[in-house]
Amino acid sequence: MKLYMNRDSGNSYKVQVLISLLKLPCEQINVDFATKQHKTPEFLKLNPRGEVPVIEDDGTVIWDSAACLVYLARRHGGGQWLPDDAAGMAEVQQWLALAATEGQIGLQYTRRGLKLGRWTAGTLEQGHAVGRVALATLENRLKDHDWLAGDHPTIADVACFAYVETAPESKLPLEPYPHIVAWLSRCKALPGWPAR
Amino acid sequence: MKLYMNRDSGNSYKVQVLISLLKLPCEQINVDFATKQHKTPEFLKLNPRGEVPVIEDDGTVIWDSAACLVYLARRHGGGQWLPDDAAGMAEVQQWLALAATEGQIGLQYTRRGLKLGRWTAGTLEQGHAVGRVALATLENRLKDHDWLAGDHPTIADVACFAYVETAPESKLPLEPYPHIVAWLSRCKALPGWPAR
Repeated sequence: MKLYMNRDSGNSYKVQVLISLLKLPCEQINVDFATKQHKTPEFLKLNPRGEVPVIEDDGTVIWDSAACLVYLARRHGGGQWLPDDAAGMAEVQQWLALAATEGQIGLQYTRRGLKLGRWTAGTLEQGHAVGRVALATLENRLKDHDWLAGDHPTIADVACFAYVETAPESKLPLEPYPHIVAWLSRCKALPGWPAR
Repeated sequence: MKLYMNRDSGNSYKVQVLISLLKLPCEQINVDFATKQHKTPEFLKLNPRGEVPVIEDDGTVIWDSAACLVYLARRHGGGQWLPDDAAGMAEVQQWLALAATEGQIGLQYTRRGLKLGRWTAGTLEQGHAVGRVALATLENRLKDHDWLAGDHPTIADVACFAYVETAPESKLPLEPYPHIVAWLSRCKALPGWPAR
């Protein structure tokens, strides 16, 4: 299996986490943002959306971090990381959606704006308003549950972790969210959870 | 089953489409945006994110449009609308993700901005740049496929349809995307596809 990724990309890190948790052999290929390698015709053939991560596994090509997580969980995860039943699978999907919308706009885009000066979806204040919806929704869940979906870790946790951990880099400190802070520690204590 | 929805919400419409295609009995409950009913403590108990749609089915509560689609497809759809195998399921997930990020930011938020004057994630120009990524990615897929995932309609099509159809209301005309226009017609011709 090949993973096209970038070392600064939290969306790539999500997939690296699951690959490590599942102990899957994988060649990691760094896609250089400085030379805009993710926008070259060659890369756009792999992912017309022009983003990392992308995985290639036995000829199957999957783009988008959540789609990669679903693929790996379903193919290699034995049901633990993505439940098979309708309600359990949908519960995970709720958090994949939160990560893709509020997590991306509120936590990632503000972080990128502050780091690189690229503001593609609103101002810092607008991003913070969206980011606080993500954090409040997570805190509300975690105040009486250890994990985001069901009673054990799933790809919901893997998908949300990446940009929640870096919320302080978006100037959203995590002190007001003690249950999120405890959950981040629980995630990092899982056997095989890789350092960033 | 109950569906908490709003008549002006494309995300609600996605779920209404699948309920209609699957011919499921369902009580539709309109959530009034004018009185901010979706932000009341009572509604936030159903969905702490404070948004429609939400479904309630035999005591199971699911928020987020994509999560509702996954739930209904998996529980009531018999495998057609969400494939069971890893690659097929992940292929659908790619388009759920595109709908949640580029579709939401680029197509829905610009539409809401133009309609209601609420700009929560960037300017019209920024939204258009993101919206064009969504449309170009869809057009690229549809130039040689009838459906977004696999060779038959799935919840990928249902999830992407809603805000692509209204792209002209976001001042993104669809004439440059003839394969998208043909696909919208194919969707609407499916037995049970409901009018908006």
